[in-house]
Amino acid sequence: MNQHLTLVTLGVADVSAARAFYVDGLGWDVVFENEGDVVFVQLGHGLLLALFGAADLAADAGLDPFVIGSGSLSLAKNVESAEEVDAVIATAVTAGGTVVKPAQPAVWGGYHGYFSDPDGVLWEVAHNPGLVVDGDGRVTMVAVEP
Amino acid sequence: MNQHLTLVTLGVADVSAARAFYVDGLGWDVVFENEGDVVFVQLGHGLLLALFGAADLAADAGLDPFVIGSGSLSLAKNVESAEEVDAVIATAVTAGGTVVKPAQPAVWGGYHGYFSDPDGVLWEVAHNPGLVVDGDGRVTMVAVEP
Repeated sequence: MNQHLTLVTLGVADVSAARAFYVDGLGWDVVFENEGDVVFVQLGHGLLLALFGAADLAADAGLDPFVIGSGSLSLAKNVESAEEVDAVIATAVTAGGTVVKPAQPAVWGGYHGYFSDPDGVLWEVAHNPGLVVDGDGRVTMVAVEP
Repeated sequence: MNQHLTLVTLGVADVSAARAFYVDGLGWDVVFENEGDVVFVQLGHGLLLALFGAADLAADAGLDPFVIGSGSLSLAKNVESAEEVDAVIATAVTAGGTVVKPAQPAVWGGYHGYFSDPDGVLWEVAHNPGLVVDGDGRVTMVAVEP
């Protein structure tokens, strides 16, 4: 089983509201959509974010309805500087997100903060100078001094 | 705010048990770890999976303890054929995962199934001939006939 993620699917309360946050608010590009039903957004190299009704996602998996939100899981976007962390969180708030942890120096030596999307999905925004991505997408990490 | 995901962090009940599933069971490569505390695994192009204690993740975000699991969110791995869907789910079960939806033809025209990891994180495994990734990582999708 090789290591590749294709989709992160958020089971949301309202697909149109989630679309307003990610597409209209953050300005992310739509790859494919059925209006009001499902929206696929480019999220990375070979990777999509899907916005899908929580009840539809639960039914697709054959499970009981979910509690909305990302449970004990967070998504993280790394950026190139502390200033960019501040800017990304400000953009998310303007788009309708909520600050969970204001941006600040992190115990592991970088700088980070958390916001949640309108469904409570937890996003970290971080600057970690010890995390480097090479041209092939291979990630290396070294500890940085706090 | 450009479109890039750097980390998917699973807040797990036991980091060593989660490591046993993803690293020992699925055979995924470790990029960086502090034993028993946090493990980072390559998950895609410029993308890592982090295994971190659920209580530690909640504390890092300044939140109350989480309910373990991925809430109303699923992760998906797409593969090249229906046979490969079957094989990936079988590998996940051997590694300690649980079948949530046995692999079967999907209403959207492909073939898929779901499993959960030992913490209940929901994974879809799918073959979708309408989803194509170009050399730059840009994804295109077209509807396929069921």
